[in-house]
Amino acid sequence: MDAIQIIKKKREGSELSSAEIQYLIEGYTAGRIPDYQMAAFLMAAQLRGMALNETITLTQCMLNSGRILDFSAISTPVVDKHSTGGVGDKISLVLTPIVGACGVRVPMISGRALGHTGGTLDKLESIPGFRTNLQIHDIYRQIRGLGVAMIGATKEIAPADRQLYALRDVTASVDFIPFITASILSKKLAEGIDGLVLDVKLGRGAFMRKNEEARELAETLVNVGEHFGMSTIAWLTNMNIPLGRAIGNWLEVEESINCLRGEGPEDVLELSLKLSGEMIALADLAGSPEEGEEMAQTVVQSGHALNFLAKIVEAQGGDPAVIHDPALRMRTLEPQTVTVPLDISGYVSDVDAFTLAEIGNSLGVGRLVIDDKIDPEAGIVLHLRPGERATPGQPLASFYTRKTDQPEQVAHSIFDAFTFSKKPVDKPNILIDRLTFEGWASNSREHNLISQS
Amino acid sequence: MDAIQIIKKKREGSELSSAEIQYLIEGYTAGRIPDYQMAAFLMAAQLRGMALNETITLTQCMLNSGRILDFSAISTPVVDKHSTGGVGDKISLVLTPIVGACGVRVPMISGRALGHTGGTLDKLESIPGFRTNLQIHDIYRQIRGLGVAMIGATKEIAPADRQLYALRDVTASVDFIPFITASILSKKLAEGIDGLVLDVKLGRGAFMRKNEEARELAETLVNVGEHFGMSTIAWLTNMNIPLGRAIGNWLEVEESINCLRGEGPEDVLELSLKLSGEMIALADLAGSPEEGEEMAQTVVQSGHALNFLAKIVEAQGGDPAVIHDPALRMRTLEPQTVTVPLDISGYVSDVDAFTLAEIGNSLGVGRLVIDDKIDPEAGIVLHLRPGERATPGQPLASFYTRKTDQPEQVAHSIFDAFTFSKKPVDKPNILIDRLTFEGWASNSREHNLISQS
Repeated sequence: MDAIQIIKKKREGSELSSAEIQYLIEGYTAGRIPDYQMAAFLMAAQLRGMALNETITLTQCMLNSGRILDFSAISTPVVDKHSTGGVGDKISLVLTPIVGACGVRVPMISGRALGHTGGTLDKLESIPGFRTNLQIHDIYRQIRGLGVAMIGATKEIAPADRQLYALRDVTASVDFIPFITASILSKKLAEGIDGLVLDVKLGRGAFMRKNEEARELAETLVNVGEHFGMSTIAWLTNMNIPLGRAIGNWLEVEESINCLRGEGPEDVLELSLKLSGEMIALADLAGSPEEGEEMAQTVVQSGHALNFLAKIVEAQGGDPAVIHDPALRMRTLEPQTVTVPLDISGYVSDVDAFTLAEIGNSLGVGRLVIDDKIDPEAGIVLHLRPGERATPGQPLASFYTRKTDQPEQVAHSIFDAFTFSKKPVDKPNILIDRLTFEGWASNSREHNLISQS
Repeated sequence: MDAIQIIKKKREGSELSSAEIQYLIEGYTAGRIPDYQMAAFLMAAQLRGMALNETITLTQCMLNSGRILDFSAISTPVVDKHSTGGVGDKISLVLTPIVGACGVRVPMISGRALGHTGGTLDKLESIPGFRTNLQIHDIYRQIRGLGVAMIGATKEIAPADRQLYALRDVTASVDFIPFITASILSKKLAEGIDGLVLDVKLGRGAFMRKNEEARELAETLVNVGEHFGMSTIAWLTNMNIPLGRAIGNWLEVEESINCLRGEGPEDVLELSLKLSGEMIALADLAGSPEEGEEMAQTVVQSGHALNFLAKIVEAQGGDPAVIHDPALRMRTLEPQTVTVPLDISGYVSDVDAFTLAEIGNSLGVGRLVIDDKIDPEAGIVLHLRPGERATPGQPLASFYTRKTDQPEQVAHSIFDAFTFSKKPVDKPNILIDRLTFEGWASNSREHNLISQS
C-alpha cells in the first residue's frame, strides 16, 4: 500500500477500504507517514466526504492507537456524558455528582477550554488542590471505590487523536463531522464505557451553528457509537445563549454548587437532571430516563448530590470544605457591574453566547491558543437572562478581570451582547430534540426552537 | 494574514487575492509556512479549483522566487520550446540545432526523465562528455556566442517550483492544470524569453490522456504566458504512440542525428520542422511559421542543422565527432530482437506508448523515483510503426538492456503493446491542433484525431 495512492483515491472521491484507513492512521502514529501527507488526506476527505463505514474505521484506528480501560469487573454498566462544547457549560460539574450519588460509575475524561468554549478540567482546577491528572491505576481504584473520576486525557488514551487534532488545528480541518465524531468517540470508547449520553450543542455559542449540521453530527455520533456496541443517546440543546448566568471557571463552580443546592439557574438544573436521568437509565439503575430523572431530583433535594461533589473533590486532592462554603476560597477580584441604561425599560429578549465568550476570553476566562494562561477567577455573571424584566439602573451583568485598564469598554461590549424588547418574551427552551438509535423524538427535521440561528 | 484562514477560504471555494497567494508562496519558500499547511492548501486548491487570476499570481510568485535571465541586450527575440512530456520525445534534440542554425537564440532549460516520460537532459548526457549543468554566466556567454544553450534547471531559477514540486509529488497534487501551468511557465519566464512554443501532448503516453484536459492545459498555458507579455503558441500533438522508432537515451540521440540527416522517422521530422517554423517566426527571423518551416527544411537539407548540433555538443564539453559518426560511441549492449509471429500477417494498427514506456523503464531507460539510476544505452527500437506492413518472421522491435535475465518475457510484453490488422491502416497524424491567443485553428472542440483515446 502507498500513502500517495490512498490520498489520490480519496481526492478522486472514492470510499477508502478499512485497510487503507488503517494504513494511514497506523503509519501516521508510527511516524512513517509524514504530516504533509496526512494534511493532504485530511483536506481531500473534508472536500470529498467520508462514508459512515470510513468514519467507523477511523474511530476504530484512533481507539486502537492507545489503551482501552476495562470495567468488565463492575456489575452495572459504566456510562459517561459528553458535550460538544459551549459557553457557560458547567453541566458535567452538576450531573456527575448527581449520577454518582445515584450509584452510576463514571470514568469521565474531559478537556480544556479552547477558542470560545470552556473546559471542565479548567473549572475543576479552580477548586483549590483539585488534581485532574490521575494515573490509570488511580482511575480504576476511584471507579471501584467512589464510583466516579473526573480526569484529563492521558497520553495512553487515543494518542492518534491527540496527534491528528494538533494537525487538524493548523490545516483548517477541524470542523468536519467525521473527524469530530472519530475524535469524540475514540476517546469515549477508550474509557471502556457501556453507555454514552451526548449533549450536542446548537447555536451561536456552539461549534455547530446550523440546525442541520448539529443534527447530522448527533446522528453520526449515535450511529458510530452504537456500531461499537455502546448505547448512545444524543440531546440537541440550545447554545444560542450561555448556560446559566456564570461564564468563568470558579464562577461556574460556584453556580454548580448553587444548582446542587437546588438554587441554581433553572436551565442548568433542567438540563443536568434530564441528562442525569438518561445516564441513570443507561446504567440500569432506573427503568426509564423519566424514572432516572426523578432519582436525580431526589438526590439534589436530599443534599446527597452536593455531598457527592465534596467526595469527588476530596478523592482528587481538593478541599471539600469549599464545596459546602465557597466563600472559603479567597477571592482576589472585585466585581465590576454593568447596569441597565436609563432609557431601557422592558425585557431581555436575547443574549449572544459567542460574543460573551469572546469578551470572557479577553478577561482571562479561556484560551485562544493551547499555551494561553487562564485566570480561574475571571469571568462574567449575567444578572438578567432572556425573558427577564429589565428596569433602568438595575444590574445587568458583572465582570471579573485583571487584564483590562478599560473597564468602560468591557461594560459596553457586554451591554452590546444583550437585546431588549418592550414586550414580554418567553424564556428560551434549553432542550431541543432527543435522538436514539431508533431516530429523533420529534418528527420534524425542520423543527427549530432557536431564534436567530 | 494567517495561513489557516487562507487554507479555509480556499477550502470553502473562494477565490484568493494576490496578496493571499503571495503570503503562502513567499512564506513557504522562506520556511515560515510548513509543508503540512502547504499540502492542505494544494489539496483544497485542486478540489475547489483555481481561477485564471490565481494561476497568474501563483506563476508570478514562483517566478519571483528566483533569478530571471535578461537577454534584453540581444537584438532578436529570444525564444524556447517546451513539451509537456512523452515517450520517445526527442524533438528538442532535432529542433534546437535547426533553429540555432537559422539564427534563433534559445536558452533551453530542460528536465530529466521521471515516471513514464523521458527527459532531454538524460538524452544529452548520453553523448560522451556533454555537460548540462552550466553556470548562469556560461549560459549568457553561450547565448551571445553560439546562440543556443541546452541546460538543466539551476537552484537559482524558480526555487519555489522545485520545492513545491517535491511536495506535490508526495501529496497526490501533481496533475492539476493551474499547478502544471505555474510550474512550466515560472521556469520558462525565468529564462527571460520573448516567445514560447508549447508542445502539449495528448494520449496514452502523455500526462493528459483526455482531449478536453489537454486543450484546457494548452489554453491555460497560452493565456497565462500571454498575460506576462510572452508570445505563446501551443500545438496539440499525438502521444498515443511513441514519437519515432527509438525509446531510450542514446538510441534517441542516434535517431535525432538521423533526422538531422533528413533520414529520420517522418513524424519526428514533421513535428520538429513545424515547431521550428513557429520558433523562427516568433524570433522575427521569418514572416510566418510557414516561411520559418521552409527555412528549417533548408538547414536540414544543407547539413547546417547537423553541424549546429555538433557545435552545441562541443560548446558544452561533449565530443562533436560522435554527432558525425555515432558509431564512435562504443556500444556495450547487443540488441535482442522481437519478430512478428508466424501467424500474423497484415499491418501494425496501433502501438501503446504508455506500455512501451513502462517496459523501457524496466530495461533501465527512465526513473520511477528521482534517485533511480538510468542506463544510457538501454531502450527499445520499433522496426514497425502503425500503418506499416507486418510479415511473419520479420523483425518487429529490438531491445537493449542489462537488467533482465528473462528476455522472453520482455519480448512478449513488447509484442503485447502492438495491435495488428488484416486490412491496411492509415499512418496516425502527429499534429492535432494549433492554439494561439486568438483561439484554436480548428473550430471543432470535439475534433479528435486520436484513435482509442
